[in-house]
Amino acid sequence: MAAYPAQPAGDMKPPVPHVPAGEMLKLLDELAAYSAPGPGVTRLLYTPEWQGVQHFLQERMAGLGLEVRMDQVGNVYGTLAGSQVSDKVILTGSHIDTVVNGGRYDGAYGVAAAVTALHYLLETFGPPLRTLAVVSFCEEEGSRFPLTFWGSGNVTGLYSGKECIDCTDADGITLGAAMAACGLAGDEGLAAEAAAGLEQSGGSRSAGCGSEGSEVESMAGLEGSFWRNNSPVRSDIAAYVELHIEQGIILERTSRRIGVVQAIAGQRRYLVKVGGTANHAGTTPMGLRQDALAGSAEMLLALEHSALAEGDPLVATTGRLEVYPGTSNVIPGEVQFTLDIRHSEAGVLERFCAAVLAEFAELGRRRGLTLEVQMLLETAPAPMDQELRAALEEICLQQEKPYLSMVSGAGHDAQLFAPRCPAAMIFVPSQGGISHSPGEYTSPEELAAGLEVLTAILYRLAYE
Amino acid sequence: MAAYPAQPAGDMKPPVPHVPAGEMLKLLDELAAYSAPGPGVTRLLYTPEWQGVQHFLQERMAGLGLEVRMDQVGNVYGTLAGSQVSDKVILTGSHIDTVVNGGRYDGAYGVAAAVTALHYLLETFGPPLRTLAVVSFCEEEGSRFPLTFWGSGNVTGLYSGKECIDCTDADGITLGAAMAACGLAGDEGLAAEAAAGLEQSGGSRSAGCGSEGSEVESMAGLEGSFWRNNSPVRSDIAAYVELHIEQGIILERTSRRIGVVQAIAGQRRYLVKVGGTANHAGTTPMGLRQDALAGSAEMLLALEHSALAEGDPLVATTGRLEVYPGTSNVIPGEVQFTLDIRHSEAGVLERFCAAVLAEFAELGRRRGLTLEVQMLLETAPAPMDQELRAALEEICLQQEKPYLSMVSGAGHDAQLFAPRCPAAMIFVPSQGGISHSPGEYTSPEELAAGLEVLTAILYRLAYE
Ligand SMILES: [Zn+2]
Ligand SMILES: [Zn+2]
Repeated sequence: MAAYPAQPAGDMKPPVPHVPAGEMLKLLDELAAYSAPGPGVTRLLYTPEWQGVQHFLQERMAGLGLEVRMDQVGNVYGTLAGSQVSDKVILTGSHIDTVVNGGRYDGAYGVAAAVTALHYLLETFGPPLRTLAVVSFCEEEGSRFPLTFWGSGNVTGLYSGKECIDCTDADGITLGAAMAACGLAGDEGLAAEAAAGLEQSGGSRSAGCGSEGSEVESMAGLEGSFWRNNSPVRSDIAAYVELHIEQGIILERTSRRIGVVQAIAGQRRYLVKVGGTANHAGTTPMGLRQDALAGSAEMLLALEHSALAEGDPLVATTGRLEVYPGTSNVIPGEVQFTLDIRHSEAGVLERFCAAVLAEFAELGRRRGLTLEVQMLLETAPAPMDQELRAALEEICLQQEKPYLSMVSGAGHDAQLFAPRCPAAMIFVPSQGGISHSPGEYTSPEELAAGLEVLTAILYRLAYE
Repeated sequence: MAAYPAQPAGDMKPPVPHVPAGEMLKLLDELAAYSAPGPGVTRLLYTPEWQGVQHFLQERMAGLGLEVRMDQVGNVYGTLAGSQVSDKVILTGSHIDTVVNGGRYDGAYGVAAAVTALHYLLETFGPPLRTLAVVSFCEEEGSRFPLTFWGSGNVTGLYSGKECIDCTDADGITLGAAMAACGLAGDEGLAAEAAAGLEQSGGSRSAGCGSEGSEVESMAGLEGSFWRNNSPVRSDIAAYVELHIEQGIILERTSRRIGVVQAIAGQRRYLVKVGGTANHAGTTPMGLRQDALAGSAEMLLALEHSALAEGDPLVATTGRLEVYPGTSNVIPGEVQFTLDIRHSEAGVLERFCAAVLAEFAELGRRRGLTLEVQMLLETAPAPMDQELRAALEEICLQQEKPYLSMVSGAGHDAQLFAPRCPAAMIFVPSQGGISHSPGEYTSPEELAAGLEVLTAILYRLAYE
């Protein structure tokens, strides 16, 4: 990769590509119109809104000169074939689904920017040397069915088709039926075939359905797919670049325009059960109690203390805590709480979790409390590609955009590609760190800045 | 009051009265038979079981030579008229209702022992000098209707009759209808009259219905009653003595047979709301959080620390705690928890609560959390009568029963009498401190020991 070609000879500051941000902002508006009623944007997998937006995107991309395709699970591609290399693809995009009453930017921004960048590159420089494609992943959030990364997970071979039978939404509609209603392959025939195939393979490739949590449990299983025709599985991806809002407050607090993601944090999620003795709040002296809640409070404070001592990017959270029997005049006999611990390095995550759980055990012992710990979820950290990171940082310097090399504490489609091909992520600020809410906001200038960085890296990857 | 009269001249150790404990144990068995199906004893107010047991008690007491009466709310009395003083009554007993799936001893023991003691005294010494009566209070627990101390509360003028209209059980049956079904005064006519009377009086005497909590909120209002005939209100009580299981673990841990209650602890109950900022557990660095749960954990530990430092009999408990939004990957934006704080001295209780709440405010401030505190309930400590306590301690010494002068952390009917007449409570051990459970247990020997102490104090009060 050389310097950006638009750089005039003798000028040390290459100009920023004049990507038409207005086109992207208009596209974002158009995408946001595909929403179920209610505040913000609600575009759940395989709903009419979802069908509408993926149809609209195909039409729009075709109109811009891209070759369009929808795979069997509903991922939409818009491709510019490479004039020199066409058996590998440089992929960019994000997910098109939203949470219920989500914002306009999460996912959609990465798609709208990718479409705009490819259009600009095609118009400005003609077809790329290497095949370049936009992807609009059908699903990432897991908001309708308990399947996160259903889009990119199918592309990377994580899923088996068995989910079509096993998974149902809140209305009892199976995933297969929801797909069939969109004219997709998830019809009964395919689901039955998938089930038959699974019986033969012992079902080991299935990630299962209904597991708690919003991130995938395993990256294993790239050995083919049960999807026969127009399979979503791809093994031709040379690189994956995703532009996304930060969904956090770090860029805003540090006054940076761009985040260059070092790694997507690995995560462990635990359920901790602390057992004490339920007893009368009036008749049991303080010294004779085994109060499961007091013990849990001590554990939570120890967790916070350890996390602060470890320092960024480690985060540790208890978001759910339940007290039993939960009556004001009864000393709690049992408390259950979750732990969500994230770090970008597997070794640190491992060491930190072990130390915290050992401390919990010791605190429990001192109070005569029992402790039961169950791991609910484990996701490995996903480091982004070193060369792509360096290129992105160089672009930010060239474009004079203050950037921060940072860890993503949230999960993204890019983490599924990281073990398989060079993957990169670019963040733009989220006002107030707000996301998954109608209040999600990034200014047009910040959105444009992200688009410029994305366009520059795609040029480097596909045109140089 | 002189020494126990059975004491033979010249013998320094007066014999223990030969009260037939077998009669009491048999009576306890008979009472326990009046129960709804299910584990333990379930005898809720104005149910067939309740009707059965109060009817049985009246028949039994009449058969033993006591004059029986049921007042308009269902309190049952068995009276031995005094040969010298009959305009005042020395009252002993407890409540006959239970919690759902409660034990055989809570309440029933105090009734069975009182009946046995009066029978013994009558048989052995003839009619008393001063009128002596057993009471089987209709209700104390508040398990069917949200009215605690309905029995003793009516006797002491706490209630108005308005509850007959306002209060309903879980099946939507009003208190008045439940009373009418038992042939009691709580029929529509009386309830309507009570309502009319309340309108005139501004309703100020009503303790209301549906207030949270298991102890009464106010001791105010002895100015008469709306119950016209056979009113439950009594102003003729010279002394009230209640024998009860401890429902705690202190006597067992200190190897004492008898607890002489110094005071029934006063109680304050609060609802504390801690407000932070709900945020993404992955994207919000530890240093940028306002975690309402971490802040609450610090408050709970501070509470425990302060309570331990204050020492017995202070107890402080958080039994209920709720986290919002309560999702494992979202930093808690709000936590609500209860505080139940008890002490036998009003000044200590006041000072301790003020200090704890000030510390909460300071801890909240440091973390940028909001704090909202609402007092749900306040019950004043009820000191037991000094002379009666001294007499009970003397009796324990005479009977060579190791005793402990102790605070009752639980509420009892005696606390309603304490502001109005000399009141005393005698405790016997509860195995493992277990109560309000089918596992409630006190050994026959311990039950007999309590009966002997009760009989001796009643002799002193009514015969000397
Ligand atoms: Zn997203
Ligand atoms: Zn009781």
